[in-house]
Formats: sequence, C-alpha cells, structure tokens
Amino acid sequence: MSLDAVLSRIDDDLPAATDRLLDLLRIPSISTDPAYKAECDRAADWLVRELSDLGVETSKRPTPGHPMVVGHLGDTGPHLLFYGHYDVQPVDPLDLWDNDPFDPQIEDTAKGQVIRGRGSSDDKGQLMTFIEALRAWKTVKGDWPCRITFFLEGEEESGSPSLVPFMKENADELKTDIALICDTGLFESKTPAIVTMLRGLLGEELTITGPSLDLHSGMYGGIAMNPVRVLSKIIASLHDDTGRITVPNFYDGVPELSDDLEAQWQGLAFDHQKFLNDVGLSTPAGEQDRTPLEMIWSRPTCEVNGIWGGYTGDGFKTVLPSKASAKISFRLVGTQDPLAIRENFRAMVTDMLPPDCEVSFNGHGASQASGADFSDPMFESARKALTDEWQVPAAYVGCGGSIPIAGHFQKILGTEPMLIGFGKDDDALHSPNEKYDMESFHKGIRSWARILDALT
Amino acid sequence: MSLDAVLSRIDDDLPAATDRLLDLLRIPSISTDPAYKAECDRAADWLVRELSDLGVETSKRPTPGHPMVVGHLGDTGPHLLFYGHYDVQPVDPLDLWDNDPFDPQIEDTAKGQVIRGRGSSDDKGQLMTFIEALRAWKTVKGDWPCRITFFLEGEEESGSPSLVPFMKENADELKTDIALICDTGLFESKTPAIVTMLRGLLGEELTITGPSLDLHSGMYGGIAMNPVRVLSKIIASLHDDTGRITVPNFYDGVPELSDDLEAQWQGLAFDHQKFLNDVGLSTPAGEQDRTPLEMIWSRPTCEVNGIWGGYTGDGFKTVLPSKASAKISFRLVGTQDPLAIRENFRAMVTDMLPPDCEVSFNGHGASQASGADFSDPMFESARKALTDEWQVPAAYVGCGGSIPIAGHFQKILGTEPMLIGFGKDDDALHSPNEKYDMESFHKGIRSWARILDALT
Repeated sequence: MSLDAVLSRIDDDLPAATDRLLDLLRIPSISTDPAYKAECDRAADWLVRELSDLGVETSKRPTPGHPMVVGHLGDTGPHLLFYGHYDVQPVDPLDLWDNDPFDPQIEDTAKGQVIRGRGSSDDKGQLMTFIEALRAWKTVKGDWPCRITFFLEGEEESGSPSLVPFMKENADELKTDIALICDTGLFESKTPAIVTMLRGLLGEELTITGPSLDLHSGMYGGIAMNPVRVLSKIIASLHDDTGRITVPNFYDGVPELSDDLEAQWQGLAFDHQKFLNDVGLSTPAGEQDRTPLEMIWSRPTCEVNGIWGGYTGDGFKTVLPSKASAKISFRLVGTQDPLAIRENFRAMVTDMLPPDCEVSFNGHGASQASGADFSDPMFESARKALTDEWQVPAAYVGCGGSIPIAGHFQKILGTEPMLIGFGKDDDALHSPNEKYDMESFHKGIRSWARILDALT
Repeated sequence: MSLDAVLSRIDDDLPAATDRLLDLLRIPSISTDPAYKAECDRAADWLVRELSDLGVETSKRPTPGHPMVVGHLGDTGPHLLFYGHYDVQPVDPLDLWDNDPFDPQIEDTAKGQVIRGRGSSDDKGQLMTFIEALRAWKTVKGDWPCRITFFLEGEEESGSPSLVPFMKENADELKTDIALICDTGLFESKTPAIVTMLRGLLGEELTITGPSLDLHSGMYGGIAMNPVRVLSKIIASLHDDTGRITVPNFYDGVPELSDDLEAQWQGLAFDHQKFLNDVGLSTPAGEQDRTPLEMIWSRPTCEVNGIWGGYTGDGFKTVLPSKASAKISFRLVGTQDPLAIRENFRAMVTDMLPPDCEVSFNGHGASQASGADFSDPMFESARKALTDEWQVPAAYVGCGGSIPIAGHFQKILGTEPMLIGFGKDDDALHSPNEKYDMESFHKGIRSWARILDALT
C-alpha cells in the first residue's frame, strides 16, 4: 500500500483523532503544582492505554516526580525515538480564559478551526500528531514502518528534574539512530521548520529578607530597609542602558552568528513588526545592536517571570514587608555555562545587598544551549517530506525557547535530535486561551506519515 | 465618690472587661476587603449595642462605605469627643499566625499577659479602654463625668473614604472642645505619650502594561519589553544613593525641626538600636544626614507596600508577563501637598516609560501631615494624669504613622486633637500575631479615668 493510502486514512480518521486529543486535553496535568500530581499520573495512564491498544509495548515508569511513559515497537529498519510531553503549564490568570481550560472546544474562527484548551499546542496536540500518524500507518499497512521507541515526559513544564537521571539509568534502552522531538512550531505560522539551534535555560528564584516580620510602614517607614526596594534595584541593574545583561562574565561563550546562517536568516524575511504587533508591541527591546531574529534565536536573555512581596490584595495595606521574591530566568546560547552564570548571578546579587538584608536562592533547572548536527542525510529527507506536505520550502531555524532534552540526547545518548513541530505564533502557549489550529493537527499528522515514509 | 473608687472598680472589673474585648475581637471586620462588608456592619452593631446598654444615646449611621457609630452622653461640663476605629487590617500571610487571628486568646508570655488577635492593639483594644473607663465611672458615681460624643469609624484601615464627607455633613453634631483619639502608643513601650506631630499619607497603586497578553519567555524573551523590569527601574529610582526621595519638588514644605523640639527629642534618649533590633535590623535606612527619630517622626518617606506580576506560585513558569503592579505610599510632613506630590509622581513615572509600555494609576487616600496645638491647658492636665498612672513623666512626641482624622478635626471642626494611646512597639500592628499587652489594656482604662477626672 502506498503513502497516499496512509494520507487518505489520516484524512478520513481526523474526527476520531480529534476526539482522542480532546479526551487527553480534559486531564489537567499541571506538573509544576503539587496539587495536580494525581492528574499527571492519570495523563500517563491514558497514554499507556492508548499506545498499548495500538499494539505498542508500553509501560509507565516511576520517577521521584511524575512518571515517564516508554514504549517500543517494530523490529527492523532504522531506529527512531519519539519524544513529547504530556504535562501542561498552569492556567492562571484563570479569569482571562473565555472557557474552562480543561473543557477543550473545537471553535470556528476567522482563521479556520482551532482546538482550544490548555496543552492543545504545548504539547498534547503535537504529541498526538505522531501517534495518529502511526495509527493510520498500522491500519493501512498492517505493520510498523520501522523500529520506534516512545519516550513521553510529564515534567517538561517544571524543569524536568527526573529526566537526566532517567536517561542515564536507561541509556541502553533509549539509544536510537535519531530522536524526533515534537515541541516546536512552524516558522511565522506558515513555513515548516526543523529547529537546529536551541537556547538553554537557567531558572533562579530569589527571596530578599529585610525586617524579620512585616512592619507598619507608618511606624518603621524611613528607618527600616524595604526588601522590595532592594529587589527592584537588583532587577533594574540586570540590564544596562543598551539592553546588555550585566551579570559578570555573562557573555563568555556567546558566539557570533556564522555568515552562512546570517544569510539564511536574512532570506527568511522575518516580519518582526507583525511578530510584535500581534502581542501589542512595536519596538524590539533587546540589545540595541542586534537584529530581531538574533534577539529571539541566537542571543542570551534575562527575564523576570514573576515578582511578589507585601500586600497584593484589593485595597491598601500600609505594610513594610519582611520579604520580596522574584523568579528570574536566563536563556543561554553557544557554550555559555549555566552553572558558572548561576554562581556569578548569585555573587552579584549578594554583593548588592545593603546592611540588614539577606538573600536566599532556589535554583530551577540549568541547561546549556544546544544545536543539532544536521549533516545526517535523515535531516534532508525529513525537510523534503515537510516541503511536500506544506508546499512551502521547509527551513532550518533557531528557536528562542529552551528544550533541554535536545542537548541531553546528544550528551547522554549520543543521539542527534530532530525538532519538528506544527505550532503557530498565535497559539498562546503558556497563556490564557491556548489553542492549536486544526490545520496544525491535520497536516502535522500527515507530515509525520510522510517523514516516516522518507526515513524508512 | 473619689477617683480611687473608680480605679478600684476598674481593677475588679478587668476580667469582665477583657471578655467584652475578646467578644469584639472575634468579629473579622476587615474594612479593605469587600468580602468582609457584613462583618464590619456586625462590629458596628456590637458597639451600638454596647454603648446603648451603658446608657449612651447611640446610632449606626450609614455611609457609602462602612457605617459610623455616633453616640452622645451627659449634659454639663466640658464637651469631649472620643474617636477610635472598629475596623482591622487584613490578616495575610495567614500561615505566619500561630492561631486563628479572629479567635483571640489570653497568653502568658515572658513579658506578662497579652491579648492576642487581629485588632487587639489596632484599634479595638485601645477603643475599649475608653468605654471601660466610662463604664467604671458610671457604675461608681452613677453619673457621667461631662458631655461626651463618641465617633467610631469603620474605614480607618482602608483610607477612610467616607470620613470627610460625614464630618462635613455632621459638623454641628461633632463639634466639641477637644477630640480624644486613641490609636497611638507609648513611647518605647514605657513612656506615656501625647502625639503632637503626625505624618500625612499618600497612597498610589500603579500597573505597568507591556505586551497585551502573557507571553512565553522563550519565544518573546529578549525582544519584548518586560513590565517587571520597567516597574523595578521606576521603584529603584525613587530614592537616590543618600536615601532622599527623587520625586520632583517632593521636599517642598518639609520643615526643619525646631530647636525646642530637637532638644526635647534628644532628651528622650531614643534607643534606635533596640527599636531596630526588635525587628531583626540594625542600620537606619533613611536619609543619611538625619537622626533615627527624625526618620520616623519628622521626615517624609516613600515605601513600597506591595508588588506583584507574572507567575508567583510554586515551581517555575517561563512567562513574560503582560502586567506588573505595585502599591506605593508616601508619608508626608509639614505642609507637603499630597495632591501636588501625586501629580509629580505620576508625571515622573510616565516619563520613565519605554516604548510600548503604558501605566495606569489608582489613588488610595491623600492626607496632609498635621500637628496639634498643645497650648490648651487640657493638654497639660492630661499629661499630668498620664504621669500619675504610669509613674513616668509623659512626653509630647511625634508619630511616624498617619492618622488623617487628626487634621480633619482641626480643619473641618476647628477642634484640637489629643492623641493618647497605650500600644507597644512589639504589638505587631498590621502583622501576624498582633497582640495588646494586658498592661496596656488595664492601665489604659485607668489612664482614661484619671484623664476624665483631670479634665472635668
């Protein structure tokens, strides 16, 4: 039977495939919040059942955190690994969602049908594109395309604490010819892309303590040091006036863009005005001497992801708070060393403390940047398959986000990662009203069928 | 019957008086939080009933916010007004309380018995000292000491929005020879004090908006302006390196201390090390060229009372937030004009905004500083009565906190305010585990009996 028959089967089965995805989306598997631990477990069970029903030898594997789902199929041909994650981001602020984030809906919009709900794009919808492609293949051909190992994680949105130990302990089982990772997007929502450059991530939470208890700002205001003032000064000093990050030695290991890649990126004609306008902005806010694509793909960043201290409810409370906290993350490129940066950041913060203030740190993940070696001919085969499906030449691109597992495949397993995904820029990842276009889901499934055909 | 008989009656009735206070403390009358509106009403009803039972002609008077309680008694002698407030501060962070803040307890501590619970010191315990003094007086003497008007407020902890309109509308009814205000403390927890200098208060809430929605910091980090960074820069710039506040023209109307008052304050031998050590601090953090007493009594301040933005829950979320907010308050002295400062602050903040950011402001109260004219001989009579009770010479002092009503009595009613209270520095006002010493409550009641005797 031909690839066309598989693609037809995918088209015919789309309503049922959508129903299966909606079923998975209904499970609120928020990995970062301990209150949802049982739900993460339930999502893992759902996947074990789904893959087992398909005929994949699958098991739920315990970790100190949320479980891994590992499955194996096939016994001849090249050996591929498929990675995705079944956990999702928290949903607050909940009042900005138009619907219950875990009661997913198919909506008709001006831009076409979308699947609305938390995790629809990141990453349950993407993960299911591969499973549905395999299902259609098996149904039509009665056999598997090649050897495939499934490796599905439940801690991607909470720093993947169990990932590296698990990969090390199960290296023999997880070693394959290539690792397909489906957690990225189309370039500018229309060009299929294989990501070959990924930023690393360093997460730091810090708490400044001044007075030993919350004080009345009338009684102590003006004589007691306010930790919010200290924290604000620290945050304000993390960038200089040109947008450069001021942590000592921060730029060690940051490479300049190669002429080749620079030329290729210029060819992409990135519309940064549209990219910014879509989210209510107009002015690139990064380093002043860099292009917008460099800012989001190849330059390191420092962002405050959260800040809190004192009274934050309705009305006013004249408290001089004892503590102020922030969550800060750095995106890393090239060979920047996350642990050295963590040390330098902490030393810099500690040096800025005025008398009577203390700081405590809590690290949240530290991963180096990674890039794929796309000289393996499987990359060109996959790129051609993507081009065939989308009728637009597929591109090798950078990615601002951090998918630490890409680097782990290289370092721990010696396997090259191939990052292919079908998300769009307006999917509202990590935001209220997250969605996944029906086009992404449908053509994503078809893309994997074509890639499986091309690689085997 | 003599004053001694009244004082004896107070001593004998202390257990019953304590029970009555505990009863009032059980009502969670948090005025700033709309969820507690009915509880504020219940506290007002409790006071109306208590005063009516005592024989005071009392009524609950509606306002657009929480009600006022107004009562009148007596028909000869000088006419005094007594002011206190029945509302309390919010209780968060609730997990730092050792007990339910609204299940008050009598505790034995190394420093003596204390009444523990929200509002015990600020201001229900203080308010009840006067009522209990009057009750003992009436019981022993069978009559009132003079004419007294009660004026009890339920919005003091939320900016007193209804106070000025109510005072203006009822000026004739509230006009008296002097206004006794019981919402302050002993000096250094041991010296009885009459406050003659009060700082004003300006509250401002601001929200900086950058992107129109929360973004993924991987996708947009480095190109999109982060509003937390903008807010931090604004807050960091509000003080210069010497501790001075940088809002333009902020120090207009800030007077230098008179030689007389400076000498009197030096005589108080304020132990600022102990004052700071009690709350885990050691270094005065205000303007570098000012004494600690100036910092808390006679110099203006700027404090951040709360800050929030982005993800503040457990774990990590790589969001680039759309909004960041802060509550900021200014304590004012001399003739500083709160409305001019509000305007200059808002202009300064607006000028600091980078492209793509917007700011919105929400004002929370604006009151000028005030000072009492203590040339009226009633002040010396009260000071002598306090000295008799505490066996320590009572002092005229400043107060860092803002009790806007003091200025309103002067401006709206032409009545001089006399601020006397019995709180201690470690009462944890506005903090978890607020308490009022049994000594403050007991000797506070006795103090008012002596003052009533001295003034009539």
